[in-house]
Amino acid sequence: MSSILSYGQTLKSPNSEHELNFKLNEVGTPFYSLHYKGKEVIKESQLGLELVDDETSLMNGFEVKEVSETSFNEVWEPVWGEQSEIINHYNEVAFTLEQPEMNRHIIIRFRLFDEGLGFRYEFPQQENLVYFVIKEEHTEFGMTGDHTAYWIPGDYDSQEYDYTTSKLSEISGLFDDALTGNASQEQFAKTGVQTSLMMKSEDGIYINLHEAALKEYSLMNLNLDESSLTFKSWLTPDAVGNKGYLQAPAVSPWRTVMVSDDATDILASNMTLNLNEPNTLEDTSWIKPIKYMGVWWEMITGKSTWNYTDDLPSVKLGETDYSKTTPNGKHAANTEHVKKYIDFASKHGFDALLVEGWNEGWEDWFGNSKDFVFDFVTPYPDFDVEEIHDYARSKNIEMMMHHETSGAIRNYERHLDTAYQFMNKCGYTSVKSGYVGDIIPRGERHYGQWAINHYLYAVKKAADYKIMVNAHEAVRPTGLRRTYPNLIGNESARGTEFQVFGGSKPNHVTILPFTRLIGGPMDYTPGIFEMDISKLNPDNNSHVNSTIANQLALYVTMYSPLQMAADLPEHYEQFMDAFQFIKDVAIDWDESHYLEAEPGEYLTVARKAKDESSWFIGNVNGTTPRKTQVELDFLEKGKTYEATIYADAKDAHYKTNPQAYEISTKKVTSRSTLKLKSASGGGFAISIIEK
Amino acid sequence: MSSILSYGQTLKSPNSEHELNFKLNEVGTPFYSLHYKGKEVIKESQLGLELVDDETSLMNGFEVKEVSETSFNEVWEPVWGEQSEIINHYNEVAFTLEQPEMNRHIIIRFRLFDEGLGFRYEFPQQENLVYFVIKEEHTEFGMTGDHTAYWIPGDYDSQEYDYTTSKLSEISGLFDDALTGNASQEQFAKTGVQTSLMMKSEDGIYINLHEAALKEYSLMNLNLDESSLTFKSWLTPDAVGNKGYLQAPAVSPWRTVMVSDDATDILASNMTLNLNEPNTLEDTSWIKPIKYMGVWWEMITGKSTWNYTDDLPSVKLGETDYSKTTPNGKHAANTEHVKKYIDFASKHGFDALLVEGWNEGWEDWFGNSKDFVFDFVTPYPDFDVEEIHDYARSKNIEMMMHHETSGAIRNYERHLDTAYQFMNKCGYTSVKSGYVGDIIPRGERHYGQWAINHYLYAVKKAADYKIMVNAHEAVRPTGLRRTYPNLIGNESARGTEFQVFGGSKPNHVTILPFTRLIGGPMDYTPGIFEMDISKLNPDNNSHVNSTIANQLALYVTMYSPLQMAADLPEHYEQFMDAFQFIKDVAIDWDESHYLEAEPGEYLTVARKAKDESSWFIGNVNGTTPRKTQVELDFLEKGKTYEATIYADAKDAHYKTNPQAYEISTKKVTSRSTLKLKSASGGGFAISIIEK
Repeated sequence: MSSILSYGQTLKSPNSEHELNFKLNEVGTPFYSLHYKGKEVIKESQLGLELVDDETSLMNGFEVKEVSETSFNEVWEPVWGEQSEIINHYNEVAFTLEQPEMNRHIIIRFRLFDEGLGFRYEFPQQENLVYFVIKEEHTEFGMTGDHTAYWIPGDYDSQEYDYTTSKLSEISGLFDDALTGNASQEQFAKTGVQTSLMMKSEDGIYINLHEAALKEYSLMNLNLDESSLTFKSWLTPDAVGNKGYLQAPAVSPWRTVMVSDDATDILASNMTLNLNEPNTLEDTSWIKPIKYMGVWWEMITGKSTWNYTDDLPSVKLGETDYSKTTPNGKHAANTEHVKKYIDFASKHGFDALLVEGWNEGWEDWFGNSKDFVFDFVTPYPDFDVEEIHDYARSKNIEMMMHHETSGAIRNYERHLDTAYQFMNKCGYTSVKSGYVGDIIPRGERHYGQWAINHYLYAVKKAADYKIMVNAHEAVRPTGLRRTYPNLIGNESARGTEFQVFGGSKPNHVTILPFTRLIGGPMDYTPGIFEMDISKLNPDNNSHVNSTIANQLALYVTMYSPLQMAADLPEHYEQFMDAFQFIKDVAIDWDESHYLEAEPGEYLTVARKAKDESSWFIGNVNGTTPRKTQVELDFLEKGKTYEATIYADAKDAHYKTNPQAYEISTKKVTSRSTLKLKSASGGGFAISIIEK
Repeated sequence: MSSILSYGQTLKSPNSEHELNFKLNEVGTPFYSLHYKGKEVIKESQLGLELVDDETSLMNGFEVKEVSETSFNEVWEPVWGEQSEIINHYNEVAFTLEQPEMNRHIIIRFRLFDEGLGFRYEFPQQENLVYFVIKEEHTEFGMTGDHTAYWIPGDYDSQEYDYTTSKLSEISGLFDDALTGNASQEQFAKTGVQTSLMMKSEDGIYINLHEAALKEYSLMNLNLDESSLTFKSWLTPDAVGNKGYLQAPAVSPWRTVMVSDDATDILASNMTLNLNEPNTLEDTSWIKPIKYMGVWWEMITGKSTWNYTDDLPSVKLGETDYSKTTPNGKHAANTEHVKKYIDFASKHGFDALLVEGWNEGWEDWFGNSKDFVFDFVTPYPDFDVEEIHDYARSKNIEMMMHHETSGAIRNYERHLDTAYQFMNKCGYTSVKSGYVGDIIPRGERHYGQWAINHYLYAVKKAADYKIMVNAHEAVRPTGLRRTYPNLIGNESARGTEFQVFGGSKPNHVTILPFTRLIGGPMDYTPGIFEMDISKLNPDNNSHVNSTIANQLALYVTMYSPLQMAADLPEHYEQFMDAFQFIKDVAIDWDESHYLEAEPGEYLTVARKAKDESSWFIGNVNGTTPRKTQVELDFLEKGKTYEATIYADAKDAHYKTNPQAYEISTKKVTSRSTLKLKSASGGGFAISIIEK
């Protein structure tokens, strides 16, 4: 039930652990603060927006015109997810704030869940606030101490950075070291970081800052004011420096603050989804989680190429005659080679096969700011679309389309209908899209309102064609998948491929669930069994900083309805017993239990397969070897199961001995406890099947 | 036949009157100069391009690698035009210039016609010049004296300025006065002017600078170096300040220099068309010149509105329910009112009726930088598309579609296919498109490469749907209509509507053919009979600075395959005898003879109707009343004709007595001479029909 609230008093979460305070100061500037279990976790922090060509802006001069409170408590079912049922329970207060001088008003709406706070700005339809341009949003998150943060540099174009763990006060000094290269990147301050931002206070309080329902707005980075340890919102500018174009009625995205003394509460939170609008698609029967393989890793590692020929300095689509060029002999996306992948994927029960490099244009797609870079419908001479699809169909494999846009958004939109029609015609039901390189129109950024509008446009149009979308390099997800459940994946963070582009820290996968995955699933593309990349490409000395057991665990710990077995078939063939886990693991879930977690150190989660009695457990470990005890009390009482445990061998180590694993089986019940050890950069994966 | 030419020597035009010289200086910088009848008209002027991230650029360090000469002489037939046959006769030299240090080369190609010079840069496919970004083009046009120029301020977004006549040295001082307001405008220098630039030297040589075949490039303005009286090319930047993105093989547009001691040679020149590629459309049967009226002028004058209701501060298409709003009672695009226009247009033999304000969204379309501003398919509640089209069809009238894009290019492209499909479905064969207001994506300009790419994209896609395009506020035409003959019109200059937005100088129409129309026809929308706008809208005191005879003459002097009788039917009904000329005048021609012309002063042209024996003559006059003698020696010998002469009355004056005209008839033959007087801001129109 709602607590009695009026201006100056408090709102509490359903379990009363969180408490929100709101006030206006003497010049009518709004502030809020948050307490958790009686302790201040967000100190009094400002709210407001600065507008272009508007001196008053929406910063001060406010009076509270109205306060309305409500409570909400419902259960809803996602089309796919970590759970088959999600509880949405919050207490809400909305303050209508008026600027009497300007005769206009906004609303700031707060929702308190058991795991934290969400709030947003609303701009109701009215005469004196119609069209307005945001110069900057001034939302602050005042930290109460020099917390430990797990952060990546604030950037308008890329999230593909390794995480740095440091105190807030150390961020600016470590900023330059944290910056690694990327095809498209632009920072704004050495005190800038991205969301979701995960932190831990000295007294063990976990705090997570993020946003939900990012649409028709520009992405929020955070800029740390080092003197006050306050994070200030820093939106992404457009080509002329403006940060958002709004037309009332409109709303900002939700700004979320999750707080708990238990890190697993952060991982288990459904706040992001709950703050999004319900599903808009009437028919979702065509949306299904996908377990897939790909003609991809061999190009990422440099063993093969995306491009067909090395003859050409550049390509003009529709003019270049590929039949007159010499194939370079390393083009993986050729019919015969693809059929071999189809055979393997089919034999091992996969749903789909992704093929990259199938289409004309890969000779000069990268780094040239090329506008008409792909047409998304013209295959290379050695890729027989029809033959491949017939073959795939006969083997019960679906082909997954690939649309690399090269950041050329207008070009993609010009071809979008014909590209989707081509997919329908040929039988592709899902597409991996990419936005590698700077955005065209030039001056726009990956995380600006312009591109954000585009990503959703592509997803909505895909739904019209009953197509599922997995968008890489697009803006990080913020829960829109509730509203548009055909958005089944994003990358938008440093994925497995970066093990080949310099490597990722071995504890990377123990941080990502606290940061990138707060907003939604990640197509992390795990399942690498051969860690020494020089074995695929002698010129590439990269090493995948993970053990095989850790790779298996990722199918459980790195939630995604899209899961790839990313390595080459020949590598799986060397370790078919370990590969069995990948074949068995479910990709859609009834329940998910986060058993233990510490950002940067470890994460153990157990999930129940959807509509089945099976359970799967995964643990990923950071750099320090560790012992875990897993109590299986979530299993159904009275049932007997067989647990197959894929664990690091005693001497496994992500660097020196990554391929050493042990497989054992055990009868278990809900009263069983498993004791396991995880190596450095290791982990374990367990399948629990009812007997 | 070609003249012998090698590096350092000369190329002559077919009639030998023009002479081109080319050279490289001691550091390998290219220069050219032009002589006309032995006199220097372009003094030694530099050529070259500055590239981004390329110190050497394409400025110097050149050596002549190859010189190739050719001649060309053919006759070709346009789909529509001022003539049914066009002669394309030139001598050409192409210099292949190599930069040995950079191991790359370009070509500068010169073509000398009898009326002047065209030249362009070419970037052949090669290894060391693939993708490059233009920082600035450095093409110079060195004037040999302080010529008189008829100019408008250099601008990245608008040409809708009145012309200023002054010496070159006076431009910067008069620049600010020349600037009038516009929905979208941006200047770059007080010495900047636009093309085509018309000039006259002290000794009576006429010089015109322009460009032809502007595609995949950014528009060229000219910046005057006052100390040397040299015009330097100044391209239009994109959002990040770059001036062009090219991929070899590529070509720049042609830079044209027309020179003659007879101003009519400039008007009669077909150089712009001849420098464009031939027609690409196989089937052109659906492309026809159009004489039309419009539900338009009453909105321009403020008598009616484009928008349906005054209730709403803003509109969200698809969400706003217009049936719940109150019609403002002044919305002209309603079924009954449109049918009245159809009746009038049909009765008087017009081809089509344009209707603006037919579609949802006009309440907030302007000045709000609104992205999703129109969907181009949803009519207002009072505009019954089907009923109107059925009625129009029964009256042998075609409806002309209107697509106001509001500069929101992405939005237009997103809707383009459905918009064109809607046109096909309903029976619209032509569309007037508009780009009022700043371009979105923000930071781009109307005349930048990005928008120029868009305009052609829309025209090419229209051809796929067999749709003719008349694009207002788009980039000025540069002859692309030869290649894409469904581009039947552009505005892209200060048209008749500006008589209502402050007025245009009475001699405006004696300059436009020398400037704007060098690149192609203009939808000038003439035919205003009621000059006192307060009679349509008491709040508007504008005056149309023209006599009725001048208005009639425009149908002949302002060449366009699209001709509008822009005024209201009730105004024509007051002067049905004068209106007869508009009904009779042809809109497609076998021959055009420019009889006399002086920029800013007068222009008289005679044209023969296509496939008919009729001729039409038009004269527009500047501020000084004037007598003209027209010899009809172009008429077919042996034939007798009846000439109907629509002339200014004795006391006619554009300001004080604009509606005073006299109509007389006369039998004439090829041996006749007509003596006529033109009032201040007046003119005459003559139809000559075979008897």
